[in-house]
Amino acid sequence: MTANRASAFDAAMTRSQVNVEAALDALLPRADGPEARVFEAMRYAVLVGGKRFRPFLVCESAKLFGVHSASALRVAAAVECVHTYSLVHDDLPCMDDDDLRRGQPTVHHKYDEATAVLAGDALLTFAFEILADGGTHELSEVRLDLVRRLAEAAGARGMVGGQMIDLASEGQSLDIGAVTRLQRLKTGALIAFSSEAGAVLGRASDEALHALHAYAHNLGLAYQIADDLLDVEGEAAVIGKSPGKDEKAGKATFVSILGLERARDQARMLSDQAIQHLDLFDEKADLLREAARFVINRRN
Amino acid sequence: MTANRASAFDAAMTRSQVNVEAALDALLPRADGPEARVFEAMRYAVLVGGKRFRPFLVCESAKLFGVHSASALRVAAAVECVHTYSLVHDDLPCMDDDDLRRGQPTVHHKYDEATAVLAGDALLTFAFEILADGGTHELSEVRLDLVRRLAEAAGARGMVGGQMIDLASEGQSLDIGAVTRLQRLKTGALIAFSSEAGAVLGRASDEALHALHAYAHNLGLAYQIADDLLDVEGEAAVIGKSPGKDEKAGKATFVSILGLERARDQARMLSDQAIQHLDLFDEKADLLREAARFVINRRN
Repeated sequence: MTANRASAFDAAMTRSQVNVEAALDALLPRADGPEARVFEAMRYAVLVGGKRFRPFLVCESAKLFGVHSASALRVAAAVECVHTYSLVHDDLPCMDDDDLRRGQPTVHHKYDEATAVLAGDALLTFAFEILADGGTHELSEVRLDLVRRLAEAAGARGMVGGQMIDLASEGQSLDIGAVTRLQRLKTGALIAFSSEAGAVLGRASDEALHALHAYAHNLGLAYQIADDLLDVEGEAAVIGKSPGKDEKAGKATFVSILGLERARDQARMLSDQAIQHLDLFDEKADLLREAARFVINRRN
Repeated sequence: MTANRASAFDAAMTRSQVNVEAALDALLPRADGPEARVFEAMRYAVLVGGKRFRPFLVCESAKLFGVHSASALRVAAAVECVHTYSLVHDDLPCMDDDDLRRGQPTVHHKYDEATAVLAGDALLTFAFEILADGGTHELSEVRLDLVRRLAEAAGARGMVGGQMIDLASEGQSLDIGAVTRLQRLKTGALIAFSSEAGAVLGRASDEALHALHAYAHNLGLAYQIADDLLDVEGEAAVIGKSPGKDEKAGKATFVSILGLERARDQARMLSDQAIQHLDLFDEKADLLREAARFVINRRN
Protein backbone atom coordinates (compact mmCIF):
# COMPACT_ATOMS: atom_id res chain seq x y z
CA MET A 1 0.00 0.00 0.00
CA THR A 2 2.69 2.46 1.04
CA ALA A 3 4.87 1.32 -1.86
CA ASN A 4 1.92 1.78 -4.23
CA ARG A 5 1.27 5.23 -2.87
CA ALA A 6 4.94 6.17 -3.27
CA SER A 7 5.09 4.89 -6.83
CA ALA A 8 1.85 6.73 -7.70
CA PHE A 9 3.48 9.86 -6.35
CA ASP A 10 6.65 9.26 -8.37
CA ALA A 11 4.55 8.83 -11.51
CA ALA A 12 2.68 12.08 -10.79
CA MET A 13 5.97 13.94 -10.20
CA THR A 14 7.35 12.61 -13.49
CA ARG A 15 4.21 13.65 -15.39
CA SER A 16 4.43 17.09 -13.82
CA GLN A 17 8.13 17.37 -14.73
CA VAL A 18 7.39 16.50 -18.35
CA ASN A 19 4.60 19.08 -18.52
CA VAL A 20 6.53 21.90 -16.88
CA GLU A 21 9.62 21.23 -18.98
CA ALA A 22 7.51 21.38 -22.14
CA ALA A 23 6.04 24.67 -20.92
CA LEU A 24 9.50 26.09 -20.13
CA ASP A 25 10.84 24.95 -23.49
CA ALA A 26 7.95 26.66 -25.27
CA LEU A 27 8.15 29.86 -23.20
CA LEU A 28 11.91 30.47 -23.09
CA PRO A 29 12.79 32.61 -26.09
CA ARG A 30 15.49 31.84 -28.64
CA ALA A 31 17.49 34.46 -30.48
CA ASP A 32 19.98 34.86 -33.25
CA GLY A 33 22.73 37.43 -33.34
CA PRO A 34 25.36 38.38 -30.80
CA GLU A 35 22.92 38.24 -27.85
CA ALA A 36 22.11 34.56 -28.55
CA ARG A 37 24.61 33.53 -25.87
CA VAL A 38 22.48 34.81 -22.99
CA PHE A 39 19.37 33.11 -24.38
CA GLU A 40 21.30 29.84 -24.69
CA ALA A 41 22.61 30.17 -21.13
CA MET A 42 19.07 30.79 -19.85
CA ARG A 43 17.82 27.66 -21.61
CA TYR A 44 20.80 25.62 -20.44
CA ALA A 45 20.31 26.68 -16.82
CA VAL A 46 16.59 25.92 -16.79
CA LEU A 47 16.42 22.83 -19.01
CA VAL A 48 19.47 20.96 -17.65
CA GLY A 49 17.15 19.17 -15.23
CA GLY A 50 15.91 19.36 -11.69
CA LYS A 51 13.17 17.95 -9.53
CA ARG A 52 10.72 20.71 -10.53
CA PHE A 53 9.34 20.52 -7.01
CA ARG A 54 8.09 24.11 -6.88
CA PRO A 55 6.26 23.77 -10.22
CA PHE A 56 4.68 20.58 -8.86
CA LEU A 57 3.36 22.52 -5.85
CA VAL A 58 1.92 25.22 -8.12
CA CYS A 59 0.13 22.69 -10.34
CA GLU A 60 -1.20 20.59 -7.43
CA SER A 61 -2.45 23.59 -5.47
CA ALA A 62 -4.12 24.83 -8.68
CA LYS A 63 -5.96 21.51 -9.06
CA LEU A 64 -7.64 22.03 -5.67
CA PHE A 65 -9.54 24.96 -7.15
CA GLY A 66 -10.18 23.72 -10.69
CA VAL A 67 -7.69 26.11 -12.28
CA HIS A 68 -6.90 25.52 -15.98
CA SER A 69 -3.64 23.63 -16.29
CA ALA A 70 -2.38 26.11 -18.92
CA SER A 71 -2.59 28.91 -16.33
CA ALA A 72 -0.94 26.82 -13.63
CA LEU A 73 1.88 25.77 -15.97
CA ARG A 74 2.72 29.38 -16.78
CA VAL A 75 2.99 30.24 -13.07
CA ALA A 76 4.94 27.03 -12.51
CA ALA A 77 7.37 28.06 -15.26
CA ALA A 78 7.76 31.53 -13.75
CA VAL A 79 8.60 30.03 -10.34
CA GLU A 80 11.13 27.68 -11.89
CA CYS A 81 12.79 30.63 -13.67
CA VAL A 82 13.15 32.42 -10.33
CA HIS A 83 14.43 29.28 -8.60
CA THR A 84 16.93 28.66 -11.41
CA TYR A 85 18.17 32.26 -11.42
CA SER A 86 18.86 31.96 -7.68
CA LEU A 87 20.89 28.79 -8.27
CA VAL A 88 22.88 30.36 -11.13
CA HIS A 89 23.82 33.36 -8.99
CA ASP A 90 24.43 31.25 -5.84
CA ASP A 91 26.84 29.06 -7.79
CA LEU A 92 29.03 32.02 -8.85
CA PRO A 93 32.65 32.06 -7.65
CA CYS A 94 31.91 35.08 -5.42
CA MET A 95 29.05 33.17 -3.75
CA ASP A 96 29.16 29.39 -3.15
CA ASP A 97 31.63 28.75 -6.01
CA ASP A 98 30.13 25.50 -7.27
CA ASP A 99 31.29 23.50 -10.28
CA LEU A 100 28.35 21.13 -10.47
CA ARG A 101 24.62 21.66 -10.37
CA ARG A 102 22.13 18.93 -11.08
CA GLY A 103 25.16 16.79 -12.02
CA GLN A 104 26.19 19.15 -14.85
CA PRO A 105 28.65 22.06 -15.13
CA THR A 106 27.27 25.23 -13.55
CA VAL A 107 26.41 28.07 -15.93
CA HIS A 108 29.58 30.07 -15.26
CA HIS A 109 31.64 26.94 -16.05
CA LYS A 110 29.70 26.09 -19.18
CA TYR A 111 29.71 29.73 -20.36
CA ASP A 112 31.49 32.36 -18.26
CA GLU A 113 30.83 34.45 -15.17
CA ALA A 114 29.49 37.50 -16.97
CA THR A 115 27.05 35.39 -18.98
CA ALA A 116 25.95 33.61 -15.78
CA VAL A 117 25.21 36.94 -14.06
CA LEU A 118 23.23 38.14 -17.10
CA ALA A 119 21.37 34.85 -17.61
CA GLY A 120 20.28 34.95 -13.96
CA ASP A 121 19.18 38.58 -14.29
CA ALA A 122 17.22 37.76 -17.45
CA LEU A 123 15.52 34.71 -15.91
CA LEU A 124 14.35 36.75 -12.93
CA THR A 125 13.01 39.44 -15.24
CA PHE A 126 11.39 36.88 -17.53
CA ALA A 127 9.41 35.40 -14.62
CA PHE A 128 7.58 38.71 -14.20
CA GLU A 129 7.01 38.94 -17.95
CA ILE A 130 5.37 35.49 -17.90
CA LEU A 131 3.11 36.39 -14.97
CA ALA A 132 2.06 39.75 -16.41
CA ASP A 133 1.03 38.25 -19.76
CA GLY A 134 -2.68 37.78 -20.42
CA GLY A 135 -2.19 34.03 -20.96
CA THR A 136 -1.56 33.53 -17.25
CA HIS A 137 -5.08 34.51 -16.12
CA GLU A 138 -7.97 36.40 -17.64
CA LEU A 139 -8.18 38.83 -14.70
CA SER A 140 -5.49 41.46 -14.43
CA GLU A 141 -5.91 41.71 -10.65
CA VAL A 142 -5.02 38.03 -10.32
CA ARG A 143 -1.91 38.42 -12.49
CA LEU A 144 -0.94 41.49 -10.50
CA ASP A 145 -1.43 39.68 -7.19
CA LEU A 146 0.93 36.97 -8.44
CA VAL A 147 3.53 39.58 -9.49
CA ARG A 148 3.35 41.25 -6.09
CA ARG A 149 3.60 38.00 -4.16
CA LEU A 150 6.47 36.69 -6.28
CA ALA A 151 8.40 39.94 -5.91
CA GLU A 152 7.98 39.80 -2.13
CA ALA A 153 8.97 36.12 -1.94
CA ALA A 154 12.04 36.57 -4.18
CA GLY A 155 13.35 39.92 -2.92
CA ALA A 156 15.38 41.19 0.00
CA ARG A 157 12.61 40.40 2.47
CA GLY A 158 12.46 36.86 1.07
CA MET A 159 14.88 34.68 -0.87
CA VAL A 160 17.65 37.27 -1.44
CA GLY A 161 17.53 38.24 2.25
CA GLY A 162 17.90 34.57 3.19
CA GLN A 163 20.92 34.21 0.92
CA MET A 164 22.46 37.33 2.50
CA ILE A 165 21.98 35.84 5.98
CA ASP A 166 23.48 32.57 4.77
CA LEU A 167 26.61 34.33 3.48
CA ALA A 168 26.89 36.57 6.55
CA SER A 169 26.59 33.56 8.86
CA GLU A 170 29.47 31.48 7.53
CA GLY A 171 31.70 30.44 10.40
CA GLN A 172 29.23 31.82 12.94
CA SER A 173 27.38 29.66 15.44
CA LEU A 174 23.66 30.14 14.84
CA ASP A 175 20.96 28.88 17.15
CA ILE A 176 17.94 26.94 15.95
CA GLY A 177 15.82 30.09 15.74
CA ALA A 178 18.32 31.86 13.51
CA VAL A 179 18.71 28.87 11.18
CA THR A 180 14.94 28.49 10.98
CA ARG A 181 14.54 32.13 10.02
CA LEU A 182 17.36 31.91 7.47
CA GLN A 183 15.71 28.96 5.75
CA ARG A 184 12.22 30.41 5.97
CA LEU A 185 13.53 33.28 3.83
CA LYS A 186 16.04 31.47 1.63
CA THR A 187 13.92 28.52 0.55
CA GLY A 188 10.62 28.84 2.43
CA ALA A 189 9.37 32.03 0.79
CA LEU A 190 9.41 30.63 -2.76
CA ILE A 191 7.95 27.29 -1.62
CA ALA A 192 5.17 29.23 0.09
CA PHE A 193 4.53 31.27 -3.06
CA SER A 194 4.35 28.04 -5.08
CA SER A 195 1.87 26.42 -2.70
CA GLU A 196 -0.32 29.52 -2.51
CA ALA A 197 -0.26 30.26 -6.24
CA GLY A 198 -3.06 27.80 -6.99
CA ALA A 199 -5.30 29.51 -4.45
CA VAL A 200 -4.54 32.90 -5.98
CA LEU A 201 -5.26 31.60 -9.50
CA GLY A 202 -8.47 29.94 -8.27
CA ARG A 203 -9.57 32.99 -6.27
CA ALA A 204 -9.93 30.71 -3.26
CA SER A 205 -11.07 31.74 0.23
CA ASP A 206 -8.68 33.26 2.73
CA GLU A 207 -9.10 30.10 4.79
CA ALA A 208 -7.79 27.95 1.93
CA LEU A 209 -4.94 30.38 1.28
CA HIS A 210 -3.89 30.37 4.92
CA ALA A 211 -4.05 26.57 5.09
CA LEU A 212 -1.74 26.32 2.06
CA HIS A 213 0.57 28.93 3.58
CA ALA A 214 0.82 26.96 6.82
CA TYR A 215 1.33 23.73 4.85
CA ALA A 216 4.14 25.35 2.85
CA HIS A 217 5.78 26.75 5.97
CA ASN A 218 6.17 23.29 7.50
CA LEU A 219 6.93 21.67 4.16
CA GLY A 220 9.71 24.15 3.42
CA LEU A 221 11.46 23.54 6.73
CA ALA A 222 11.09 19.76 6.41
CA TYR A 223 12.55 20.06 2.90
CA GLN A 224 15.52 22.01 4.18
CA ILE A 225 16.25 19.65 7.07
CA ALA A 226 16.17 16.79 4.57
CA ASP A 227 18.62 18.77 2.43
CA ASP A 228 20.97 19.20 5.38
CA LEU A 229 20.71 15.46 6.11
CA LEU A 230 21.51 14.67 2.47
CA ASP A 231 24.53 16.95 2.63
CA VAL A 232 25.87 14.79 5.48
CA GLU A 233 24.64 11.37 4.35
CA GLY A 234 24.26 11.63 0.56
CA GLU A 235 26.51 10.47 -2.25
CA ALA A 236 27.64 12.93 -4.91
CA ALA A 237 26.41 10.72 -7.75
CA VAL A 238 22.89 10.63 -6.33
CA ILE A 239 22.47 14.18 -5.06
CA GLY A 240 24.14 15.69 -8.15
CA LYS A 241 26.45 17.95 -6.19
CA SER A 242 29.36 17.56 -3.77
CA PRO A 243 28.30 16.33 -0.30
CA GLY A 244 29.85 17.70 2.88
CA LYS A 245 29.76 21.23 1.43
CA ASP A 246 28.03 22.81 4.39
CA GLU A 247 30.52 21.46 6.90
CA LYS A 248 33.46 22.57 4.77
CA ALA A 249 31.95 26.05 4.46
CA GLY A 250 31.51 26.18 8.24
CA LYS A 251 27.77 26.61 7.84
CA ALA A 252 25.40 26.06 10.74
CA THR A 253 22.66 23.67 9.60
CA PHE A 254 19.75 21.91 11.30
CA VAL A 255 21.97 18.82 11.50
CA SER A 256 24.97 20.62 13.00
CA ILE A 257 22.72 22.14 15.67
CA LEU A 258 20.29 19.30 16.38
CA GLY A 259 22.38 16.26 15.48
CA LEU A 260 21.28 13.57 13.01
CA GLU A 261 18.66 11.87 15.15
CA ARG A 262 16.82 14.96 16.35
CA ALA A 263 17.00 16.52 12.89
CA ARG A 264 15.29 13.42 11.45
CA ASP A 265 12.61 13.58 14.17
CA GLN A 266 12.05 17.27 13.51
CA ALA A 267 11.65 16.70 9.77
CA ARG A 268 9.09 13.94 10.42
CA MET A 269 7.14 16.15 12.80
CA LEU A 270 7.09 19.05 10.34
CA SER A 271 5.95 16.71 7.57
CA ASP A 272 3.06 15.47 9.76
CA GLN A 273 2.07 19.02 10.63
CA ALA A 274 2.13 20.03 6.97
CA ILE A 275 -0.30 17.20 6.17
CA GLN A 276 -2.64 18.23 9.00
CA HIS A 277 -2.95 21.72 7.53
CA LEU A 278 -4.55 20.15 4.46
CA ASP A 279 -7.46 18.71 6.49
CA LEU A 280 -9.98 21.10 4.96
CA PHE A 281 -9.30 19.72 1.46
CA ASP A 282 -10.64 16.43 0.09
CA GLU A 283 -8.74 13.73 -1.77
CA LYS A 284 -7.76 16.23 -4.45
CA ALA A 285 -5.00 17.23 -1.98
CA ASP A 286 -3.60 13.69 -1.71
CA LEU A 287 -0.58 14.40 -3.88
CA LEU A 288 0.25 17.46 -1.76
CA ARG A 289 0.00 15.20 1.30
CA GLU A 290 2.29 12.74 -0.43
CA ALA A 291 4.69 15.57 -1.26
CA ALA A 292 5.10 16.23 2.46
CA ARG A 293 6.13 12.58 2.90
CA PHE A 294 8.35 12.71 -0.20
CA VAL A 295 10.46 15.64 0.95
CA ILE A 296 11.71 13.82 4.04
CA ASN A 297 12.34 10.52 2.24
CA ARG A 298 13.97 11.81 -0.93
CA ARG A 299 17.44 10.63 -1.96
CA ASN A 300 18.39 13.75 -3.92
CA MET B 1 17.31 83.47 -23.92
CA THR B 2 19.12 80.17 -24.56
CA ALA B 3 21.04 80.58 -21.33
CA ASN B 4 17.79 81.29 -19.49
CA ARG B 5 16.20 78.23 -21.01
CA ALA B 6 19.16 76.06 -20.03
CA SER B 7 19.16 77.33 -16.48
CA ALA B 8 15.39 76.79 -16.20
CA PHE B 9 16.02 73.25 -17.36
CA ASP B 10 18.80 72.75 -14.81
CA ALA B 11 16.50 73.99 -12.06
CA ALA B 12 13.75 71.60 -13.17
CA MET B 13 16.22 68.69 -13.24
CA THR B 14 17.40 69.56 -9.74
CA ARG B 15 13.82 69.75 -8.43
CA SER B 16 13.09 66.38 -10.03
CA GLN B 17 16.23 64.86 -8.52
CA VAL B 18 15.27 66.05 -5.06
CA ASN B 19 11.75 64.63 -5.43
CA VAL B 20 12.81 61.26 -6.79
CA GLU B 21 15.54 60.86 -4.18
CA ALA B 22 13.03 61.57 -1.43
CA ALA B 23 10.71 58.95 -2.98
CA LEU B 24 13.53 56.41 -3.21
CA ASP B 25 14.61 57.11 0.35
CA ALA B 26 11.05 56.56 1.58
CA LEU B 27 10.46 53.44 -0.52
CA LEU B 28 13.72 51.54 -0.04
CA PRO B 29 13.29 49.33 3.00
CA ARG B 30 15.61 49.18 5.99
CA ALA B 31 16.22 46.07 8.05
CA ASP B 32 17.91 44.90 11.21
CA GLY B 33 19.53 41.54 11.67
CA PRO B 34 22.05 39.66 9.58
CA GLU B 35 20.34 40.55 6.27
CA ALA B 36 20.76 44.29 6.93
CA ARG B 37 23.88 44.29 4.75
CA VAL B 38 21.95 43.76 1.51
CA PHE B 39 19.45 46.50 2.41
CA GLU B 40 22.33 48.88 3.14
CA ALA B 41 24.02 48.00 -0.16
CA MET B 42 20.76 48.63 -2.03
CA ARG B 43 20.40 52.05 -0.41
CA TYR B 44 24.06 52.88 -1.00
CA ALA B 45 23.86 51.95 -4.68
CA VAL B 46 20.70 53.97 -5.30
CA LEU B 47 21.25 56.99 -3.06
CA VAL B 48 24.94 57.63 -3.82
CA GLY B 49 23.85 60.04 -6.54
CA GLY B 50 23.22 60.16 -10.23
CA LYS B 51 21.56 62.38 -12.79
CA ARG B 52 18.16 60.67 -12.31
CA PHE B 53 17.55 61.24 -16.01
CA ARG B 54 15.17 58.30 -16.45
CA PRO B 55 13.02 59.38 -13.48
CA PHE B 56 12.93 62.88 -14.98
CA LEU B 57 11.54 61.43 -18.22
CA VAL B 58 8.88 59.49 -16.30
CA CYS B 59 7.75 62.54 -14.36
CA GLU B 60 7.77 64.88 -17.37
CA SER B 61 5.87 62.45 -19.61
CA ALA B 62 3.37 61.98 -16.77
CA LYS B 63 2.77 65.74 -16.60
CA LEU B 64 1.60 65.74 -20.23
CA PHE B 65 -1.42 63.71 -19.19
CA GLY B 66 -2.18 65.20 -15.79
CA VAL B 67 -0.98 62.15 -13.85
CA HIS B 68 -0.69 62.56 -10.06
CA SER B 69 2.93 63.17 -9.15
CA ALA B 70 2.77 60.50 -6.41
CA SER B 71 2.05 57.88 -9.09
CA ALA B 72 4.75 59.16 -11.40
CA LEU B 73 7.33 59.24 -8.60
CA ARG B 74 6.71 55.58 -7.76
CA VAL B 75 7.27 54.57 -11.39
CA ALA B 76 10.30 56.88 -11.52
CA ALA B 77 11.70 55.15 -8.43
CA ALA B 78 11.11 51.71 -9.97
CA VAL B 79 12.97 52.71 -13.14
CA GLU B 80 15.88 54.07 -11.12
CA CYS B 81 16.07 50.78 -9.16
CA VAL B 82 16.35 48.88 -12.45
CA HIS B 83 18.91 51.31 -13.85
CA THR B 84 20.95 51.10 -10.64
CA TYR B 85 20.83 47.30 -10.52
CA SER B 86 22.20 47.23 -14.07
CA LEU B 87 25.09 49.51 -13.06
CA VAL B 88 25.88 47.42 -9.96
CA HIS B 89 26.07 44.23 -12.00
CA ASP B 90 27.89 45.88 -14.94
CA ASP B 91 30.56 47.16 -12.54
CA LEU B 92 31.35 43.64 -11.22
CA PRO B 93 34.88 42.29 -11.80
CA CYS B 94 33.52 39.66 -14.22
CA MET B 95 31.83 42.40 -16.28
CA ASP B 96 33.35 45.88 -16.73
CA ASP B 97 35.38 45.70 -13.47
CA ASP B 98 34.91 49.30 -12.39
CA ASP B 99 36.17 50.86 -9.16
CA LEU B 100 34.28 54.12 -9.41
CA ARG B 101 30.67 54.93 -10.17
CA ARG B 102 29.21 58.38 -9.80
CA GLY B 103 32.59 59.34 -8.30
CA GLN B 104 32.22 56.88 -5.39
CA PRO B 105 33.43 53.31 -4.77
CA THR B 106 31.33 50.76 -6.67
CA VAL B 107 29.13 48.47 -4.56
CA HIS B 108 31.46 45.48 -4.74
CA HIS B 109 34.32 47.71 -3.53
CA LYS B 110 32.31 49.28 -0.74
CA TYR B 111 30.85 45.90 0.32
CA ASP B 112 31.92 42.74 -1.53
CA GLU B 113 31.09 40.93 -4.76
CA ALA B 114 28.48 38.59 -3.31
CA THR B 115 26.65 41.49 -1.68
CA ALA B 116 26.79 43.44 -4.96
CA VAL B 117 25.23 40.53 -6.88
CA LEU B 118 22.48 40.19 -4.25
CA ALA B 119 21.83 43.93 -3.97
CA GLY B 120 21.41 44.10 -7.75
CA ASP B 121 19.06 41.12 -7.73
CA ALA B 122 17.02 42.67 -4.92
CA LEU B 123 16.77 46.08 -6.63
CA LEU B 124 15.49 44.49 -9.83
CA THR B 125 12.92 42.51 -7.86
CA PHE B 126 11.93 45.54 -5.81
CA ALA B 127 11.13 47.53 -8.96
CA PHE B 128 8.35 45.07 -9.77
CA GLU B 129 7.12 45.16 -6.18
CA ILE B 130 6.82 48.96 -6.41
CA LEU B 131 4.92 48.82 -9.70
CA ALA B 132 2.52 46.08 -8.56
CA ASP B 133 1.54 47.96 -5.39
CA GLY B 134 -1.82 49.72 -5.34
CA GLY B 135 -0.15 53.06 -4.62
CA THR B 136 1.23 53.21 -8.16
CA HIS B 137 -2.15 53.50 -9.90
CA GLU B 138 -5.74 52.77 -8.93
CA LEU B 139 -6.30 50.48 -11.94
CA SER B 140 -4.69 47.06 -11.83
CA GLU B 141 -4.52 46.86 -15.64
CA VAL B 142 -2.37 50.00 -15.69
CA ARG B 143 0.01 48.60 -13.05
CA LEU B 144 0.15 45.32 -14.94
CA ASP B 145 0.89 47.09 -18.23
CA LEU B 146 3.81 48.84 -16.52
CA VAL B 147 5.11 45.53 -15.13
CA ARG B 148 4.93 43.92 -18.57
CA ARG B 149 6.63 46.84 -20.31
CA LEU B 150 9.37 47.11 -17.70
CA ALA B 151 10.07 43.36 -17.85
CA GLU B 152 10.38 43.54 -21.63
CA ALA B 153 12.60 46.62 -21.53
CA ALA B 154 14.89 45.21 -18.84
CA GLY B 155 15.14 41.56 -19.96
CA ALA B 156 17.06 39.56 -22.53
CA ARG B 157 15.20 41.22 -25.41
CA GLY B 158 16.07 44.61 -23.94
CA MET B 159 18.74 45.86 -21.55
CA VAL B 160 20.28 42.50 -20.61
CA GLY B 161 20.46 41.50 -24.28
CA GLY B 162 22.24 44.77 -25.03
CA GLN B 163 24.76 44.13 -22.28
CA MET B 164 25.37 40.62 -23.67
CA ILE B 165 26.03 42.07 -27.13
CA ASP B 166 28.36 44.65 -25.59
CA LEU B 167 30.40 41.95 -23.84
CA ALA B 168 30.38 39.66 -26.88
CA SER B 169 31.56 42.49 -29.13
CA GLU B 170 34.72 43.48 -27.27
CA GLY B 171 37.63 43.55 -29.69
CA GLN B 172 35.29 43.06 -32.66
CA SER B 173 34.75 45.65 -35.34
CA LEU B 174 31.06 46.52 -35.41
CA ASP B 175 29.41 48.58 -38.11
CA ILE B 176 27.10 51.50 -37.39
CA GLY B 177 24.01 49.30 -37.65
CA ALA B 178 25.33 46.83 -35.07
CA VAL B 179 26.33 49.58 -32.60
CA THR B 180 22.95 51.27 -33.05
CA ARG B 181 21.13 48.02 -32.30
CA LEU B 182 23.40 47.34 -29.28
CA GLN B 183 22.63 50.73 -27.79
CA ARG B 184 18.94 50.58 -28.62
CA LEU B 185 18.77 47.50 -26.39
CA LYS B 186 21.35 48.39 -23.74
CA THR B 187 20.26 51.93 -22.93
CA GLY B 188 17.42 52.72 -25.35
CA ALA B 189 14.87 50.21 -24.04
CA LEU B 190 14.82 51.63 -20.51
CA ILE B 191 14.83 55.23 -21.76
CA ALA B 192 11.86 54.32 -23.98
CA PHE B 193 10.03 52.74 -21.03
CA SER B 194 10.66 55.88 -18.98
CA SER B 195 9.35 58.20 -21.69
CA GLU B 196 6.26 56.08 -22.35
CA ALA B 197 5.42 55.46 -18.68
CA GLY B 198 3.58 58.77 -18.34
CA ALA B 199 1.35 57.89 -21.28
CA VAL B 200 0.60 54.49 -19.74
CA LEU B 201 -0.19 56.07 -16.35
CA GLY B 202 -2.36 58.69 -18.06
CA ARG B 203 -4.10 56.17 -20.32
CA ALA B 204 -3.14 58.34 -23.27
CA SER B 205 -3.96 57.68 -26.94
CA ASP B 206 -1.86 55.33 -29.04
CA GLU B 207 -0.79 58.37 -31.04
CA ALA B 208 0.69 60.01 -27.93
CA LEU B 209 2.34 56.76 -26.88
CA HIS B 210 3.93 56.29 -30.30
CA ALA B 211 5.15 59.89 -30.37
CA LEU B 212 6.85 59.41 -26.99
CA HIS B 213 8.31 56.12 -28.17
CA ALA B 214 9.79 57.77 -31.27
CA TYR B 215 11.05 60.67 -29.14
CA ALA B 216 12.74 58.23 -26.74
CA HIS B 217 14.28 56.26 -29.57
CA ASN B 218 16.11 59.31 -30.92
CA LEU B 219 16.81 60.67 -27.46
CA GLY B 220 18.39 57.40 -26.33
CA LEU B 221 20.77 57.25 -29.28
CA ALA B 222 21.70 60.91 -28.91
CA TYR B 223 22.35 60.25 -25.22
CA GLN B 224 24.62 57.33 -26.05
CA ILE B 225 26.60 59.19 -28.70
CA ALA B 226 27.12 61.97 -26.16
CA ASP B 227 28.31 59.31 -23.69
CA ASP B 228 30.82 58.02 -26.22
CA LEU B 229 32.00 61.59 -26.88
CA LEU B 230 32.43 62.16 -23.13
CA ASP B 231 34.44 58.96 -22.85
CA VAL B 232 36.90 60.41 -25.37
CA GLU B 233 36.77 64.07 -24.38
CA GLY B 234 35.72 64.09 -20.72
CA GLU B 235 37.71 64.46 -17.53
CA ALA B 236 37.42 61.86 -14.78
CA ALA B 237 36.60 64.45 -12.12
CA VAL B 238 33.63 65.72 -14.11
CA ILE B 239 32.21 62.50 -15.57
CA GLY B 240 32.69 60.60 -12.27
CA LYS B 241 34.36 57.61 -13.90
CA SER B 242 37.57 56.87 -15.77
CA PRO B 243 37.63 58.28 -19.30
CA GLY B 244 39.11 56.36 -22.24
CA LYS B 245 37.55 53.13 -20.92
CA ASP B 246 35.90 52.18 -24.19
CA GLU B 247 39.07 52.50 -26.22
CA LYS B 248 41.06 50.50 -23.66
CA ALA B 249 38.39 47.78 -23.69
CA GLY B 250 38.56 47.69 -27.49
CA LYS B 251 34.90 48.62 -27.74
CA ALA B 252 33.41 49.86 -30.97
CA THR B 253 31.54 53.11 -30.24
CA PHE B 254 29.76 55.71 -32.34
CA VAL B 255 32.91 57.81 -32.08
CA SER B 256 35.30 55.03 -33.10
CA ILE B 257 33.13 54.31 -36.15
CA LEU B 258 32.01 57.80 -37.19
CA GLY B 259 34.85 59.94 -35.86
CA LEU B 260 34.37 62.92 -33.52
CA GLU B 261 32.91 65.37 -36.03
CA ARG B 262 30.33 63.09 -37.62
CA ALA B 263 29.38 61.68 -34.22
CA ARG B 264 28.66 65.24 -33.01
CA ASP B 265 26.57 65.92 -36.14
CA GLN B 266 24.67 62.70 -35.69
CA ALA B 267 23.86 63.49 -32.04
CA ARG B 268 22.58 66.93 -33.03
CA MET B 269 20.40 65.48 -35.79
CA LEU B 270 18.92 62.87 -33.45
CA SER B 271 18.23 65.54 -30.84
CA ASP B 272 16.36 67.64 -33.45
CA GLN B 273 14.34 64.64 -34.58
CA ALA B 274 13.44 63.79 -30.99
CA ILE B 275 12.06 67.31 -30.53
CA GLN B 276 10.01 67.08 -33.75
CA HIS B 277 8.26 63.97 -32.46
CA LEU B 278 6.82 66.10 -29.66
CA ASP B 279 4.98 68.40 -32.10
CA LEU B 280 1.56 67.09 -31.10
CA PHE B 281 2.09 68.26 -27.50
CA ASP B 282 1.78 71.84 -26.28
CA GLU B 283 4.16 73.77 -24.05
CA LYS B 284 3.75 71.15 -21.30
CA ALA B 285 6.35 69.19 -23.30
CA ASP B 286 8.91 72.01 -23.23
CA LEU B 287 11.08 70.34 -20.59
CA LEU B 288 11.13 67.13 -22.64
CA ARG B 289 12.21 69.23 -25.63
CA GLU B 290 14.89 70.80 -23.47
CA ALA B 291 15.98 67.32 -22.32
CA ALA B 292 16.75 66.44 -25.93
CA ARG B 293 19.03 69.49 -26.10
CA PHE B 294 20.51 68.72 -22.67
CA VAL B 295 21.64 65.19 -23.52
CA ILE B 296 23.94 66.33 -26.29
CA ASN B 297 25.36 69.25 -24.33
CA ARG B 298 25.90 67.58 -20.96
CA ARG B 299 29.33 67.51 -19.34
CA ASN B 300 28.76 64.29 -17.34
